[in-house]
Amino acid sequence: MIFNCRIAEKTSDLKSAGPRKPKNIRGTYENVRQATRRLCAPLCPEDCVIQSMPDASPTRWHLAHTTWFFETFVLAETVDNYKPFHPDYYYLFNSYYNAVGAQFPRPDRGVLSRPAMADIDAYRLHVDQMMRELLGSTSRLSDDLVRTIEIGLHHEQQHQELILTDIKNAFSLNPILPVYCKRLPMSKSATISMGWCDYPEGLYWIGHAGGGFGYDHEFPRHRVFLESFELAKRPVTNGEYMEFMADGGYENSQLWLSEGWQAVRSGGWTAPLYWFREGDDRVSYTLSGRRSIDPNEPVCHVSYFEADAFARWRGCRLPREAEWEIATADVKACGNFVEGGLFHPVSAVERPGDRMPQQMYGDVWEWTSSPYIGYPGYQPPPGAIGEYNGKFMCNQFVLRGGSCVTPASHIRHTYRNFFQPSARWQFSGIRLAR
Amino acid sequence: MIFNCRIAEKTSDLKSAGPRKPKNIRGTYENVRQATRRLCAPLCPEDCVIQSMPDASPTRWHLAHTTWFFETFVLAETVDNYKPFHPDYYYLFNSYYNAVGAQFPRPDRGVLSRPAMADIDAYRLHVDQMMRELLGSTSRLSDDLVRTIEIGLHHEQQHQELILTDIKNAFSLNPILPVYCKRLPMSKSATISMGWCDYPEGLYWIGHAGGGFGYDHEFPRHRVFLESFELAKRPVTNGEYMEFMADGGYENSQLWLSEGWQAVRSGGWTAPLYWFREGDDRVSYTLSGRRSIDPNEPVCHVSYFEADAFARWRGCRLPREAEWEIATADVKACGNFVEGGLFHPVSAVERPGDRMPQQMYGDVWEWTSSPYIGYPGYQPPPGAIGEYNGKFMCNQFVLRGGSCVTPASHIRHTYRNFFQPSARWQFSGIRLAR
Amino acid sequence: MIFNCRIAEKTSDLKSAGPRKPKNIRGTYENVRQATRRLCAPLCPEDCVIQSMPDASPTRWHLAHTTWFFETFVLAETVDNYKPFHPDYYYLFNSYYNAVGAQFPRPDRGVLSRPAMADIDAYRLHVDQMMRELLGSTSRLSDDLVRTIEIGLHHEQQHQELILTDIKNAFSLNPILPVYCKRLPMSKSATISMGWCDYPEGLYWIGHAGGGFGYDHEFPRHRVFLESFELAKRPVTNGEYMEFMADGGYENSQLWLSEGWQAVRSGGWTAPLYWFREGDDRVSYTLSGRRSIDPNEPVCHVSYFEADAFARWRGCRLPREAEWEIATADVKACGNFVEGGLFHPVSAVERPGDRMPQQMYGDVWEWTSSPYIGYPGYQPPPGAIGEYNGKFMCNQFVLRGGSCVTPASHIRHTYRNFFQPSARWQFSGIRLAR
Amino acid sequence: MIFNCRIAEKTSDLKSAGPRKPKNIRGTYENVRQATRRLCAPLCPEDCVIQSMPDASPTRWHLAHTTWFFETFVLAETVDNYKPFHPDYYYLFNSYYNAVGAQFPRPDRGVLSRPAMADIDAYRLHVDQMMRELLGSTSRLSDDLVRTIEIGLHHEQQHQELILTDIKNAFSLNPILPVYCKRLPMSKSATISMGWCDYPEGLYWIGHAGGGFGYDHEFPRHRVFLESFELAKRPVTNGEYMEFMADGGYENSQLWLSEGWQAVRSGGWTAPLYWFREGDDRVSYTLSGRRSIDPNEPVCHVSYFEADAFARWRGCRLPREAEWEIATADVKACGNFVEGGLFHPVSAVERPGDRMPQQMYGDVWEWTSSPYIGYPGYQPPPGAIGEYNGKFMCNQFVLRGGSCVTPASHIRHTYRNFFQPSARWQFSGIRLAR
Repeated sequence: MIFNCRIAEKTSDLKSAGPRKPKNIRGTYENVRQATRRLCAPLCPEDCVIQSMPDASPTRWHLAHTTWFFETFVLAETVDNYKPFHPDYYYLFNSYYNAVGAQFPRPDRGVLSRPAMADIDAYRLHVDQMMRELLGSTSRLSDDLVRTIEIGLHHEQQHQELILTDIKNAFSLNPILPVYCKRLPMSKSATISMGWCDYPEGLYWIGHAGGGFGYDHEFPRHRVFLESFELAKRPVTNGEYMEFMADGGYENSQLWLSEGWQAVRSGGWTAPLYWFREGDDRVSYTLSGRRSIDPNEPVCHVSYFEADAFARWRGCRLPREAEWEIATADVKACGNFVEGGLFHPVSAVERPGDRMPQQMYGDVWEWTSSPYIGYPGYQPPPGAIGEYNGKFMCNQFVLRGGSCVTPASHIRHTYRNFFQPSARWQFSGIRLAR
Repeated sequence: MIFNCRIAEKTSDLKSAGPRKPKNIRGTYENVRQATRRLCAPLCPEDCVIQSMPDASPTRWHLAHTTWFFETFVLAETVDNYKPFHPDYYYLFNSYYNAVGAQFPRPDRGVLSRPAMADIDAYRLHVDQMMRELLGSTSRLSDDLVRTIEIGLHHEQQHQELILTDIKNAFSLNPILPVYCKRLPMSKSATISMGWCDYPEGLYWIGHAGGGFGYDHEFPRHRVFLESFELAKRPVTNGEYMEFMADGGYENSQLWLSEGWQAVRSGGWTAPLYWFREGDDRVSYTLSGRRSIDPNEPVCHVSYFEADAFARWRGCRLPREAEWEIATADVKACGNFVEGGLFHPVSAVERPGDRMPQQMYGDVWEWTSSPYIGYPGYQPPPGAIGEYNGKFMCNQFVLRGGSCVTPASHIRHTYRNFFQPSARWQFSGIRLAR
Repeated sequence: MIFNCRIAEKTSDLKSAGPRKPKNIRGTYENVRQATRRLCAPLCPEDCVIQSMPDASPTRWHLAHTTWFFETFVLAETVDNYKPFHPDYYYLFNSYYNAVGAQFPRPDRGVLSRPAMADIDAYRLHVDQMMRELLGSTSRLSDDLVRTIEIGLHHEQQHQELILTDIKNAFSLNPILPVYCKRLPMSKSATISMGWCDYPEGLYWIGHAGGGFGYDHEFPRHRVFLESFELAKRPVTNGEYMEFMADGGYENSQLWLSEGWQAVRSGGWTAPLYWFREGDDRVSYTLSGRRSIDPNEPVCHVSYFEADAFARWRGCRLPREAEWEIATADVKACGNFVEGGLFHPVSAVERPGDRMPQQMYGDVWEWTSSPYIGYPGYQPPPGAIGEYNGKFMCNQFVLRGGSCVTPASHIRHTYRNFFQPSARWQFSGIRLAR
Repeated sequence: MIFNCRIAEKTSDLKSAGPRKPKNIRGTYENVRQATRRLCAPLCPEDCVIQSMPDASPTRWHLAHTTWFFETFVLAETVDNYKPFHPDYYYLFNSYYNAVGAQFPRPDRGVLSRPAMADIDAYRLHVDQMMRELLGSTSRLSDDLVRTIEIGLHHEQQHQELILTDIKNAFSLNPILPVYCKRLPMSKSATISMGWCDYPEGLYWIGHAGGGFGYDHEFPRHRVFLESFELAKRPVTNGEYMEFMADGGYENSQLWLSEGWQAVRSGGWTAPLYWFREGDDRVSYTLSGRRSIDPNEPVCHVSYFEADAFARWRGCRLPREAEWEIATADVKACGNFVEGGLFHPVSAVERPGDRMPQQMYGDVWEWTSSPYIGYPGYQPPPGAIGEYNGKFMCNQFVLRGGSCVTPASHIRHTYRNFFQPSARWQFSGIRLAR
């Protein structure tokens, strides 16, 4: 997966939502930026440098890149004669915006030690100070500018999640198994039985309806015809996944896509990522260190290939993204899987007899069977800021929902996350359909 | 692309088409088998051994593998105490059927010189003889058996096309530029102007309607909702593509998908495959050797990435597969691009003022913007023979139509071809939509 | 090992040997050229195309390249207005001579099917006819020309050996295990006990003494000081090597060079090349097909790493090339290991009590512990023809002796063969020193 | 190159040198350990984590590994019931000692952030404290123990040099070009003209004579016969090397070994490592940042391939290691190239008319034409501590002398450094012979 900045749409839908309140945006700015810094509190400078694989980035880089966004797309565009904090940062902390210039090669981000954390702190302070001045001057805040800042804050929230997924990946490779956060609350064991909600065939509307923030690729709202379908009430659990493993799931080529089977063989996969054996036991590495596996928790850190093979083994399938979106249009309940616990997901409340699925957000991102492509009529926004989502509409699959490390305010039912089918280091799990 | 046998569906739709006539199948068997052999007439034994890349196979292998299909799925299942022609051939000429046993590694097929062509001829003769006996005995021909034989013949037709795409690829790497077939008829230069046909929004049925042969993944027939759209009346020509090149299409990252841009850089792409420079001229390698480029012919041997970038450059897009299928439901006309000319495509007849697109088949396979996945409710057929199409529903795109080297009787408007987006060695081109 | 043409030196030493007799060279030319063709008699055209790995070449290529040598360095230089047989062959069949022009990429030689064998036969006949005319005209045969022809013949003899080593490698990958030559005489089991010959310390002369043919890197003759040493009377046998295997030789990192241990692990080595298991038995693939392993035959197809590890395990070491050369200065006896049997090695005659080692040639090439570098004062010959041996004086080790597939007239005690330490597909074995 | 601990020999030669004074070793211990720490003073914690390539290691790792040596081979062997500082460090900081246990994969050292620098400081303090207690108790200091400690100190000195070569490599990849040490003294421009010293042919002794410290592979002292030769009085300068570049040295395949030419092409080499263009100027990255190139300084950061090609271009050759050793047997003068300047090399004093070469040490390591193999009779020492030098006697070349970043007390004329011929990140240069 190559990723990490999804840029918001400036559509007429959004425009119709009316001008935002500068006061509001100022408080949000402070909250989001402080939340990022808080996330890094448990890390020492050495931790912030390492990069475990090309898909992941060092913490240093996340901290600087989100700041670069505000400097490049807000300050440099707004402040007269803006003088960059450091001339090299334009190159170093650009992720993918070709229109803005060249980028430092992504896989080599872990070779850089400078600017050091102290320098990056200074960079953030400097940009925050300038931003505060700007945000304090209501007259300078055009609607367009507010919208760009809003994009930058959503962008930073995405990187908050990535800071955690990436450091988890790096720590997991250290034989010492470092602990990010000692005492995570244990998740409440799932008590929801595996039931199904059913939906009739019909012509449905999906996509962002306007009236709030959304990324470009959530638009335009459009119609899809769906056959009748059923959706599981909750994600697949570790216990259920262990049955698949015990039944030889990882040894049976018949269950796998051809590329999936290659991934199993070449990667030596025999369990979800971060599971390992300790004598006869299976344990997993988590942000709070080594933990035994709770059979009632949602299975996590599986690839699309594994999700797809599991579903086939169960005689089911994965949901299409349209099915998922329709099913969750009115659901507000969130998960109770709290490895991270970091963003306080609202606990799911089981309502027996309810037709609605539970635990739709806040546990794990859920793989859908939909390849990631543009909606009919999709247009990427003009300019450098639009140079993102559309670029990746090839060889990736859509995930829906949100995980225990996704900021709660970043979750919405039209949100389209996407990764390559072999990706496992995100907090990704499985919901069944049939 | 990893591929080459797409196995037909035994659905109730097919069943409802009623039993086939044994006489009919016998003649078809002879015709198809002889056509394969005729295709190899211009090749010397040395040609039949080489493999230019892992995606391609030696001619030897195509000849043996198509025969293996009849031996394994027809003779061994039907003839009492059937004794295999050679015990090792089961292993050597299995392509992908894990249920039938292990396979010789695909990328190493070019290391094998034995069985030599004389042995493979003997193998074909032996199997043909046994098949003739079987086909002559009406009482032994159950409906199921006829259907399996029919699959085998469609399967062999696919490999006929592959024999040509693969040998073209191998020959193109030889500095001597060997000629497969000296005097191909020159294609009639396209005279159709680039016009558009338009289609209203609505709920459409697509997929195979039954009543004839179809592969599993053309089923089930189902509804899709489409917005209104326009489709170009003919494929993009070399001349139009050269404008894209002249405008810096291969140097402008903004036009490309992220993975496409990587392919351009790492592969050093600056033109379609098989185009090369001769002084200031651009010429191309064809099955009849080096030829100058006709600006009126459809552009060919482009990847999905190139098709997508070209469409973006033109301010258009590629068609969805449903759009393509609906537009061609009643079109019978074929192409006039005859590099191969090998399968006598029916010439397109331009009917001015007609709402229907022209040149829909018989020129080039046309990339669609649809990732290759199963239709809603898709089920792969049971058993080893079903172990194919469903395995590749990941990271491939659908192509529609058929090319100048596709057997005419193999072309139909519900046909779903699929390749990885970087593939260029098939006869693949571009039709625009908007 | 990057291989296969070692070009002879035109030194004053050689000159002092006096002019060669044209009659003599004419007969030798016919003999060598016919021997090459005879070697290919058991091969079908398909066999002559395949290339099993970058280090090996197709038979087609060997046949054409040796002919190209005479065309390029003799005919084109001597015959007025010489018209090349085919203009592309200069490029296609050049192996390494940068001075003569570009080369077709070595690893892709197996992708070429043309010129086909019939074309190459015609090429050989054409060049042979021209050469015959030249050799028949004594007046045109300058000393220099005779010497170049002589080089070409030695060069062709090297390729005779390579034709066999390369086809053996390719055949070994075919599950059918094709047979090159059905009935090879079984080798007489070794009866020589493992004894030692000892040599006193002293200042010795090594290198070619002049008076016969020698390659550039066998010169100049020079002095080396050697401590006293002992050399085993015969090569290590399969039986002795199996003791090493049984003692866990392939699992004990302490025995191996660091790079050797990597080769063992990454290559999955557990035995010499071409050995495989058949139930509980170990058998090997030979040019006459599958054979059981004779414990008395010299172990063959081992890399330098394996030879070195074996010697360490036995508490011995490999000989230095100077030690080997001094020990064999007066030995004429040859081996009795006849897998090939193709070149009629003279059988070894054991002379008990003799101080001289036995079986020094004609069984297996013997790895020495000497990295391949130039002798003091070494100068590569000028011009394109000298562009060979000196280029490879890096990361290769010297082998001495000659194998059962080395033409007998090509063997001499000053001969320096060289390959990369990981190479196993040559007929290479082990002699111990201490 | 895989390397970095060369373990000293416990030969009778060394023994004959008599027991060392405990007082002496105690002071040396303090000096060496403090010097290591001083070297790291300019680095921030982030710098100590990064690894630029598999051949290099993070500073963290050097600091811990050298400490691990004393803990494993001294404290754990000597102190009763020694309790390791941290159980995982045995695994994490073992470099190559298979006998002591498994190692963390070398190329992944840069993925570890923990133990952090503070932990490693604590580790060093702990081990130093224990060592001080041990060194203070004369009665516990056996001769063997003193010798092991001495090895550990030489080992640490090697890593001092590597700390600098590795951080230079990593910094050079950072577009910011971080400065290790701001104000390095500029080197005094070379004033020595390129003259030659000549040596007569003869039988010479080389190798360590005993009576001081030496690594295992410097033994045994032995005789070699050398032809007469000449050695340049000083290393090749940047100015001379630029002539080679200007003459198309990097474009002329005739000058290069076959593997060297591949390295030039695949690596895109056009100048020594760390040279880059700034407009029309060539500048280089140094430990004090970007610097213009002084034509009088010794050329540095060239591979064996470049050294060999340069020598060929000049009609000369590289010296054999025996030639180098004989020539320097009585030379004490050191270099004046002071990029590092870190270890205060004694300045060279030109003595006109002197037969001895100048600037033999303290500028750059000098590539010799000698592949790295064991001397006749070489035996690696027994036990884990001997598991080093002998493992690498394959595909490496010997360098002699010592560079501006080699601790002065670590330099001696029998010292054998060795690297793969493609290595460029060491301070390696060229001296000519003929």
